[in-house]
Amino acid sequence: MVEISVIMGSKSDWPTMKTTCQILDEFGVSYDKHVISAHRMSDEMVDFAKSAEAKGTKVIIAGAGMAAHLPGMTAANTILPVIGVPGQTKALGGMDSLLSIVQMPTGIPVATTAIGNAGASNAALLAIEMLGISNPELRQKLKDYRKKMHDEAKESSAELE
Amino acid sequence: MVEISVIMGSKSDWPTMKTTCQILDEFGVSYDKHVISAHRMSDEMVDFAKSAEAKGTKVIIAGAGMAAHLPGMTAANTILPVIGVPGQTKALGGMDSLLSIVQMPTGIPVATTAIGNAGASNAALLAIEMLGISNPELRQKLKDYRKKMHDEAKESSAELE
Amino acid sequence: MVEISVIMGSKSDWPTMKTTCQILDEFGVSYDKHVISAHRMSDEMVDFAKSAEAKGTKVIIAGAGMAAHLPGMTAANTILPVIGVPGQTKALGGMDSLLSIVQMPTGIPVATTAIGNAGASNAALLAIEMLGISNPELRQKLKDYRKKMHDEAKESSAELE
Amino acid sequence: MVEISVIMGSKSDWPTMKTTCQILDEFGVSYDKHVISAHRMSDEMVDFAKSAEAKGTKVIIAGAGMAAHLPGMTAANTILPVIGVPGQTKALGGMDSLLSIVQMPTGIPVATTAIGNAGASNAALLAIEMLGISNPELRQKLKDYRKKMHDEAKESSAELE
Amino acid sequence: MVEISVIMGSKSDWPTMKTTCQILDEFGVSYDKHVISAHRMSDEMVDFAKSAEAKGTKVIIAGAGMAAHLPGMTAANTILPVIGVPGQTKALGGMDSLLSIVQMPTGIPVATTAIGNAGASNAALLAIEMLGISNPELRQKLKDYRKKMHDEAKESSAELE
Amino acid sequence: MVEISVIMGSKSDWPTMKTTCQILDEFGVSYDKHVISAHRMSDEMVDFAKSAEAKGTKVIIAGAGMAAHLPGMTAANTILPVIGVPGQTKALGGMDSLLSIVQMPTGIPVATTAIGNAGASNAALLAIEMLGISNPELRQKLKDYRKKMHDEAKESSAELE
Amino acid sequence: MVEISVIMGSKSDWPTMKTTCQILDEFGVSYDKHVISAHRMSDEMVDFAKSAEAKGTKVIIAGAGMAAHLPGMTAANTILPVIGVPGQTKALGGMDSLLSIVQMPTGIPVATTAIGNAGASNAALLAIEMLGISNPELRQKLKDYRKKMHDEAKESSAELE
Amino acid sequence: MVEISVIMGSKSDWPTMKTTCQILDEFGVSYDKHVISAHRMSDEMVDFAKSAEAKGTKVIIAGAGMAAHLPGMTAANTILPVIGVPGQTKALGGMDSLLSIVQMPTGIPVATTAIGNAGASNAALLAIEMLGISNPELRQKLKDYRKKMHDEAKESSAELE
Repeated sequence: MVEISVIMGSKSDWPTMKTTCQILDEFGVSYDKHVISAHRMSDEMVDFAKSAEAKGTKVIIAGAGMAAHLPGMTAANTILPVIGVPGQTKALGGMDSLLSIVQMPTGIPVATTAIGNAGASNAALLAIEMLGISNPELRQKLKDYRKKMHDEAKESSAELE
Repeated sequence: MVEISVIMGSKSDWPTMKTTCQILDEFGVSYDKHVISAHRMSDEMVDFAKSAEAKGTKVIIAGAGMAAHLPGMTAANTILPVIGVPGQTKALGGMDSLLSIVQMPTGIPVATTAIGNAGASNAALLAIEMLGISNPELRQKLKDYRKKMHDEAKESSAELE
Repeated sequence: MVEISVIMGSKSDWPTMKTTCQILDEFGVSYDKHVISAHRMSDEMVDFAKSAEAKGTKVIIAGAGMAAHLPGMTAANTILPVIGVPGQTKALGGMDSLLSIVQMPTGIPVATTAIGNAGASNAALLAIEMLGISNPELRQKLKDYRKKMHDEAKESSAELE
Repeated sequence: MVEISVIMGSKSDWPTMKTTCQILDEFGVSYDKHVISAHRMSDEMVDFAKSAEAKGTKVIIAGAGMAAHLPGMTAANTILPVIGVPGQTKALGGMDSLLSIVQMPTGIPVATTAIGNAGASNAALLAIEMLGISNPELRQKLKDYRKKMHDEAKESSAELE
Repeated sequence: MVEISVIMGSKSDWPTMKTTCQILDEFGVSYDKHVISAHRMSDEMVDFAKSAEAKGTKVIIAGAGMAAHLPGMTAANTILPVIGVPGQTKALGGMDSLLSIVQMPTGIPVATTAIGNAGASNAALLAIEMLGISNPELRQKLKDYRKKMHDEAKESSAELE
Repeated sequence: MVEISVIMGSKSDWPTMKTTCQILDEFGVSYDKHVISAHRMSDEMVDFAKSAEAKGTKVIIAGAGMAAHLPGMTAANTILPVIGVPGQTKALGGMDSLLSIVQMPTGIPVATTAIGNAGASNAALLAIEMLGISNPELRQKLKDYRKKMHDEAKESSAELE
Repeated sequence: MVEISVIMGSKSDWPTMKTTCQILDEFGVSYDKHVISAHRMSDEMVDFAKSAEAKGTKVIIAGAGMAAHLPGMTAANTILPVIGVPGQTKALGGMDSLLSIVQMPTGIPVATTAIGNAGASNAALLAIEMLGISNPELRQKLKDYRKKMHDEAKESSAELE
Repeated sequence: MVEISVIMGSKSDWPTMKTTCQILDEFGVSYDKHVISAHRMSDEMVDFAKSAEAKGTKVIIAGAGMAAHLPGMTAANTILPVIGVPGQTKALGGMDSLLSIVQMPTGIPVATTAIGNAGASNAALLAIEMLGISNPELRQKLKDYRKKMHDEAKESSAELE
């Protein structure tokens, strides 16, 4: 049993979604990771989404690009929170991925983060915040992480000045 | 058995997709029509797409708006041609629907038409063109239809001049 | 003590954020609601965000428009999950609100939903999904809600056919 | 006699449209390919489009960039289905090509695919799907191709895990 | 023989292109006007464009919307200057029309003006400036027109102050 | 006395506007070229524009990028036709240049071409078309040029096939 | 002598720019207002900008729409700070005005505010902030104004709760 | 005591904001510079903004990218003029930064400049113009700087010709 599942539409999303996994590692949150193409592995996607809750998964993070249907279709098949990470794209920068993920119609939410690496990092942090709702230890770790980020930003200011 | 299935993500797409049906009626092409929400009726969507070929359906026309996943997910579950009609949207005019439908990654095509009514009309004509590949009678009807459009355009010019 | 805080940048966001509250009511989830302008009530916003966890709040939903800083700045001051709802705008349809909310740089996530009413509804559902991680009863309510949406969509198809 | 004609507005479209041809080769579907500039070879374009049906062509795939008029103008001169592939462009990423191809007004459809290589691949698959309407062997090949894509995606997931 | 031909893709462009004609009337420049649909009257469009120079036409003004191919395809069939007026559109405001007209690839220019009425007015003035190159009287009329515009703007300032 | 003036907002526009000059050279049309910054050389710009007609200039071609005011402000100070070439830009691809040039309000037209090199080439051809209105020799040269482009496109098709 | 000049490209900008004047009135800051069209009153614009400093003007606020050249060209002719207010536009919402004003190339700044009424209000406040640099009384008034806005926002929250 | 504070959201903004500092150096205007992340150093940001006026700072220049909240949130906590410089971004070119900075709602202005280096340069010049309101010596320096820019532009024209 893992707490978080990180899925992505294609192995080409891995360089981005790796960032997600690094942060989950850093927080010691258990996860598994899969390539699940909404379009080429539609059955597996549905099975994955439908069985996630029973397997004990608590949050799903889904990265995908272009007409990115993976986050929304996964969300349609589970009542676990699904976080969508829009992949950067060559032609349109990722505006296509972003709108395909964030503009979900009424009824099925996807928690969307920024395009590309920033969004992949924040997806991990957001998932941890969700787990933190009922986990004071994780909340403390998040505070420590914030503190570290804060101190690093402050140091970079000192260096600049 | 019908030749064409017209599906739409929500009944709010009907005012647009009605245009599709009117043209199919005009050409005497058989069709059925359904609301199949990719997100709220995911199982039915998959079933529908997977069984369409066996039922004798030849082309699927799918209209949807916002993060429009219906055309692409239907296409992922059938090897029948799927035509996608992007719905016009209040916030972004339909740019969200368009990109969510047309920007399909390699492997699963969706034949995308214009946003809104023009796209809904053209979806019907495109489906008929596809049927026409092996149906000379329909090809003749398309030529007659073109002739009629041509003559009406010409008449409107005469009125203007 | 309430589980969810619904905040908005201005009272002009209320017609949109009302949708959020209606769904929370429907699920029987406790919430409070405030106008907290990131720009005109910056101190209150910081106080609100910093004290939310201690007050027992579990999720914050923040709606704002134009250069919408409320969701991101609230997120910067709490480790509770923050959901951002981009308001539709007159000039740019809400693209400004969306990008101001979703494009958060690495470190501080905002769970962004769609522009306008659809996003406001989904923000409530997303918050409930988050609470559901440790609340099986809410998970059941979500399944019931999904079932109801599913049945309504199916009925609307029956009416169409 | 060939089943599919692949045309492009300029030889600079070949690196993209080559992808189309590779997939047609893989499926053993006969095709020819031409540079036909809508603007510099307008007469040839009209002749090509008008004579395509009589020559036995069944589907036309047209790739073009910027103010891409080739797909729409070809479609205006034939009742064969025309698939349009928007070329990626330096200045605007291909948004110009996309809108010039997909936003066809009522009456003349163009089946539009994604910008660039993904769209070029999918154009071939879409054309084969159209031929498949009356060709069970091609439908089987499409299923085999889907199976192969599916297995490759699944393998890439195994590698990742 | 007329000096300027005003063409438009559909009679729905007339409310916009009427503005062009009013200014041509005001300057006493001869013109004719036609609905010539690039897509529904492709042959007439080619004939029109090819014969324009021989008929003594000096400048062509073409208004069209959505995937607006009329200006570019007319330009492809004549060496007369062609002015393109992008129509405002419901879904995308006219960005589709604009990019379909202005983004002409190397070799065939279209002199593009603003979207909608402002562009339709300016198309007339631009055509008159072109005629003015070899017509001092028209140049004088243009200066008088500028003077009038200047004085009206100045008066509106006086009223404001 | 030269027939055409090629101006640009900064020497960084030269790599683009060089294309314009090469085509003018090819047609043997006389021109001069200047850097005239609308913002840093406002007086010279006004003087240049106001004196152009009297010097015998017939058409002005103005290339500029970002908030590109040179074409429109030159047009405001002359009744000669002004052609605007939007420069490609790093941040926004040239959408900023394009809109700053093409969206001229009623009264002062700028004949806008495509972003970047294609637009710079076409600006030269458009200027020559304007001169051709009263110059049959130039019209013949344009026909020869079109023929050459046509033949080259056709040859590139032969090579492809 | 007035401290602030409010200029606008056309009287159609007045409904927007009136908001600017109301706030200046509220602060008791002296101003005059003019319609000065960059394109139709180019000479007056240059004269206005060049003489503003000598007349004792301290800040210029310029509102304009579409290819909005007034703020940038005024800025090019004075070393007083110029604030640009992008007008909302029918076709493109004001994206054209915004980019034409904000994307000024290196050397000539324009202090740009939001599209439409919000930007017009903020232009007044920004001008007052600039005057406040050397005017403690105005700084106090700004603090009072902020306090009032703060209290009103807070009250609207109380009403909501 | 320094006259101008240059702040930026992250040290990755320094290559852009360095341009600002170089111009301030060139004008001999005193400044300090800090990394102050709106999100990671929210308290410091508020303190910085609230104490700036008392420290004698006269203008604040804030550069930030993506969902750039630093300029607006700083402005919310001071009545000093705040200039916002939108950072260029990988995915969306800087459109996200621009809209997050410029689209400030009524009440709190941010003086926005262009995306990237041009905007960073102009931010310095704009700040100096603001100081120049009550400093004739700086106004003279600005005129000298304009003169130098003018002469360089003119020389680059001489080189071109």
